[in-house]
Amino acid sequence: MRRYLDQVTLGQAVECMITSFPPPGRTARVPILQAEGMITAAPVYAGYTVPIADVAAMDGFAVSSQETTGARDQVPVSLSSSVPVNTGNLIPSGCDAVVMIEDCWLEGGRPQVRKAVAPGTNIRRKGEDLSGGEQILPGNHLIRPTDISALAACGITELEVKQISIGVIPTGSELVVSGTSPMPGQVVESNSVMIEAMLGGGGVVCTRYPHVPDDPDLIREKVAACTGVHDLVIITGGSSAGTRDYCETALTGLGEVLFHGVAIKPGKPTLLARVHEQPVIGLPGYPLSAHLILRELIIPLLRAWGLAKPLAGNLCRVELGQKTFSDCGIDEFINLSIGRVSGRYVGLLQPRGAAVQMSLVRSNGYVHIPAAVEGYEAGTAVDAVVTTGMEEIERTLLIAGVHGEPLDLLGSVIRQQGGTLLPCFCRRENGIQALIQRICHAAMIDSPIPNRGPPRPTIRIPFGSQGLATLHLAKQQVGIVSREGLGIEDLPGRTMIGMPTGSPEEEVFMNALRRCRVIDASTTIRTADVMKHTGEIARAVRDGLANAGIGTSQSAAPFDLSFVPLGLISYDLLIDEDLCEDEPIAGLIRAISSPRYRMALKESGYISDFTGEIYHLPPCPGVGPCDEIPWRARS
Amino acid sequence: MRRYLDQVTLGQAVECMITSFPPPGRTARVPILQAEGMITAAPVYAGYTVPIADVAAMDGFAVSSQETTGARDQVPVSLSSSVPVNTGNLIPSGCDAVVMIEDCWLEGGRPQVRKAVAPGTNIRRKGEDLSGGEQILPGNHLIRPTDISALAACGITELEVKQISIGVIPTGSELVVSGTSPMPGQVVESNSVMIEAMLGGGGVVCTRYPHVPDDPDLIREKVAACTGVHDLVIITGGSSAGTRDYCETALTGLGEVLFHGVAIKPGKPTLLARVHEQPVIGLPGYPLSAHLILRELIIPLLRAWGLAKPLAGNLCRVELGQKTFSDCGIDEFINLSIGRVSGRYVGLLQPRGAAVQMSLVRSNGYVHIPAAVEGYEAGTAVDAVVTTGMEEIERTLLIAGVHGEPLDLLGSVIRQQGGTLLPCFCRRENGIQALIQRICHAAMIDSPIPNRGPPRPTIRIPFGSQGLATLHLAKQQVGIVSREGLGIEDLPGRTMIGMPTGSPEEEVFMNALRRCRVIDASTTIRTADVMKHTGEIARAVRDGLANAGIGTSQSAAPFDLSFVPLGLISYDLLIDEDLCEDEPIAGLIRAISSPRYRMALKESGYISDFTGEIYHLPPCPGVGPCDEIPWRARS
Repeated sequence: MRRYLDQVTLGQAVECMITSFPPPGRTARVPILQAEGMITAAPVYAGYTVPIADVAAMDGFAVSSQETTGARDQVPVSLSSSVPVNTGNLIPSGCDAVVMIEDCWLEGGRPQVRKAVAPGTNIRRKGEDLSGGEQILPGNHLIRPTDISALAACGITELEVKQISIGVIPTGSELVVSGTSPMPGQVVESNSVMIEAMLGGGGVVCTRYPHVPDDPDLIREKVAACTGVHDLVIITGGSSAGTRDYCETALTGLGEVLFHGVAIKPGKPTLLARVHEQPVIGLPGYPLSAHLILRELIIPLLRAWGLAKPLAGNLCRVELGQKTFSDCGIDEFINLSIGRVSGRYVGLLQPRGAAVQMSLVRSNGYVHIPAAVEGYEAGTAVDAVVTTGMEEIERTLLIAGVHGEPLDLLGSVIRQQGGTLLPCFCRRENGIQALIQRICHAAMIDSPIPNRGPPRPTIRIPFGSQGLATLHLAKQQVGIVSREGLGIEDLPGRTMIGMPTGSPEEEVFMNALRRCRVIDASTTIRTADVMKHTGEIARAVRDGLANAGIGTSQSAAPFDLSFVPLGLISYDLLIDEDLCEDEPIAGLIRAISSPRYRMALKESGYISDFTGEIYHLPPCPGVGPCDEIPWRARS
Repeated sequence: MRRYLDQVTLGQAVECMITSFPPPGRTARVPILQAEGMITAAPVYAGYTVPIADVAAMDGFAVSSQETTGARDQVPVSLSSSVPVNTGNLIPSGCDAVVMIEDCWLEGGRPQVRKAVAPGTNIRRKGEDLSGGEQILPGNHLIRPTDISALAACGITELEVKQISIGVIPTGSELVVSGTSPMPGQVVESNSVMIEAMLGGGGVVCTRYPHVPDDPDLIREKVAACTGVHDLVIITGGSSAGTRDYCETALTGLGEVLFHGVAIKPGKPTLLARVHEQPVIGLPGYPLSAHLILRELIIPLLRAWGLAKPLAGNLCRVELGQKTFSDCGIDEFINLSIGRVSGRYVGLLQPRGAAVQMSLVRSNGYVHIPAAVEGYEAGTAVDAVVTTGMEEIERTLLIAGVHGEPLDLLGSVIRQQGGTLLPCFCRRENGIQALIQRICHAAMIDSPIPNRGPPRPTIRIPFGSQGLATLHLAKQQVGIVSREGLGIEDLPGRTMIGMPTGSPEEEVFMNALRRCRVIDASTTIRTADVMKHTGEIARAVRDGLANAGIGTSQSAAPFDLSFVPLGLISYDLLIDEDLCEDEPIAGLIRAISSPRYRMALKESGYISDFTGEIYHLPPCPGVGPCDEIPWRARS
């Protein structure tokens, strides 16, 4: 069994990459309008002089300035030899100034002026902008929109820019092409898309090849064919130490492996080889690992090669929301959702699983835990890297707690208002605790409520936490979906697809079972499977995987299933009354009250009877003081 | 004669635009890899569950966790029913955990473990990332590279994004197409390129139409044809009050003019009309005016329409280098070159001519002088907007003084080092004064030096300014270029193309005339023209516009002209010895000493004998104390 014998540190890996491979020196000729974000390969010179002759800088009359001598408010001068000119017109010979149209009036067909003008007034001198042959842009210059328009004005329609060509070879027998539905055990090949999305543009051209199965000969063949064509070859997957990881084997026969294994998390199984003097990188297969290696190793290489790949972002001092551990000797990177709560910046840790792409989607920054540090306590102030602008951080709403579609729908409305809603999914109690600790703006709660009776959920607030309030989002009917119109009495002896234990749907179902005395023991209902999403459950019931499932009328309709309601789920946000008027929370309240949001809820089958009130929650005497609850994702 | 009767303020103009025209609501379906920087038109949902079943999160052996109970360092357990799995493989039934390959070894064909594992260890749970039907991205979301790869992983290959279609109609009978050389009085149409470069992308699609001559009927016809097709129509040029400005006339017959004239500088002649319920904007023709209106009026409209056009940049407190005046009642914007000199941020004003595109190329920020302010004294601290990142400001070299190709060539080398060189062209004395006032990093000087004698220029430093030093860049031979091999004695009676008075080339020539006793009066040499660039002069001599011209051997060669040397010009940078080790200046010295720069100079025909020394300059006793010299561009 192989191990990473040659594991290097992150710093060593970057240095090895940069010192082993000098800039490839590839250039390409592109039309100016495609050149934004690219780098000039050489200085660019003006094709002609701009303007090519003295021209009028204003609409008015070209005059000999001598003729205006002595003109004053009380003593206007009548111009004998003036020529009407528009902006850009050539200055006629004999004239050396332009009087603005606003400063003249006609009398007897002749323009009159009240003010003397000096020679050169309102004239654009030949070459004022540039002389022909003068430099417009230096070499190695990052081309901006304003540069493009200057190039166009100086006669340049295309120019030579730096280019890097990257060949991407996905490997893995388990891969299927993006756009097809994977079968169990199959994985959609999306890392090559990530590579092109992250590295492409600005002069970097990615060529994505079809994936190669786990066969060292096929991989070797493909790499050998690519190294002559591209400046950098990236192999995704197969760089680990498993029985099917042929990346190293394939490369060893072809060139020299410079390192295999980087002390970085995620991203350890990374490999660098030199094949025909060119770099070949074996990128780990997990999306977050691949992402980190692209950001921390490959973008620095592209920068060293003179491309304008921006660094991740600015630093921001944040208070970490949760405790985190890190292995000593490993540079570790954890994605954060950063927002400003109660006057200070807070970073909530996103799940660390290297496969969970959504943790990148839901984050706006990250923290680097250096190799020498073993982790941080909750509340530690660290320098986080912000991957969006700081203005966006100011407008970011951090919402801890459970997942629910009403929160997803709210996200679109918040974005419409110019804000960002970042959910940090955890158990209900963790969400409430996060709110009490003021490390989030609101906590999302879903709770079963009876079909009749008080319309608000009973939320148990720890003793000693004052000033919490609820904002009601929506309610939803939950019930049984089936092909045959089954009610709760019909379930014994049938198979059923349930929701995870602890989910409000499951609670509604269990409450209904308890209410419905005809059923003695729930064991008589067999659980075929557990699914998290009502749409999935309905599809499975339609497909005959079970007799019935927990669902909503909305989920039943598209599959032509019947729906028998059992109870309601209420979705609510908990907020801190003291912070109601702070901007992101005030924006949240506006969004929840907006007709747009109420409409979106109704369209998705929710009961939306919000009237805009904020309900104060008294601390619940039965619940003890706020102890530390270990932060945990909801299963 | 018309005036701007309906002039509005900048704030009124923006409000009028936004309140008069609600978001058009256009969307388009694009492949995910083209979607970066665009905005989702609706929430995007996962096509399937990721992962679709429980899979191994590590390479190793799938086991029943119960079997590992009791395994310890001293008491390894031999696994009877384990199944080798690679990352991503399905978990076989009966197994509920994966032991990492690193934690096992084989003995008698069976894996041995030293550590018990809990159920679920190293297993990626079905739906860990997302369940089928769950939201990947909300609506109104700015799509980042990381989002694209999450979309690909969840089965999305294309998505619906917001789109704005802009039709661009350049007007003006003087216009010629970019890429052709303009004749005197013609102007290359480049504003439509600016519009596409500044507004295009991120969901904005610009259609540039061929230019329309100054004819109100043709303009009206074109606008009428465009308003049904695009969401916004921009007419460039013709929006002023000249005799050929038909924009308002054309629009009045078609719709309602909402305003004509904005109290903003540059950019006053801007027009907004409503035609068929759609906005039509008349953009002024001067490039800097057009640029300002795009930035201050049209980008805010696109933002209000939900597009992700970024604002110009962050604020930075800078000390203004020069005095500036502004008209009361006008919002004025002046481009700045910003850098950090001697520990504080300085902003040098770029020329304000609305036609000078190079002032945008040479700036990295701007200052907004509000309508109520009449200008600022030199040294005033103002909030400037930085249009590049702050890191680039830190690495920006501000160089005041004269223009010269050795400075242009240096710019490419500085960029190669990761820095930026921004020249602020002014007269030699202004450059020296700027250096003494520490509002630039270095001052560029060109001076004629004798062909023989001391190799350094005599630079007259004002009395009282201590610690200045020169960095020599290069020397260049200047002489006479002609078709017939003319020397200075042959010039009387001939026509000659000169360089502007005060240029070092002209000084070399005048010195040579003085040295050469055969000529009694320079009046016997007729000046055919004055040009700024030796390449231009050589081309004109080749074309027979004069018998001879001032030039260099480099400029003579491509036109097959002969060259008779007359004297040398020395190009030098003045720096402040005390700041030599501050980063941008240290980088400047590295760049000047680099083989790459010496090579570039030689290739361009310069004499490059720099040895790396810094020459200390004693104050010149003959020159008075440092008085304020009015800042003026060199003519």
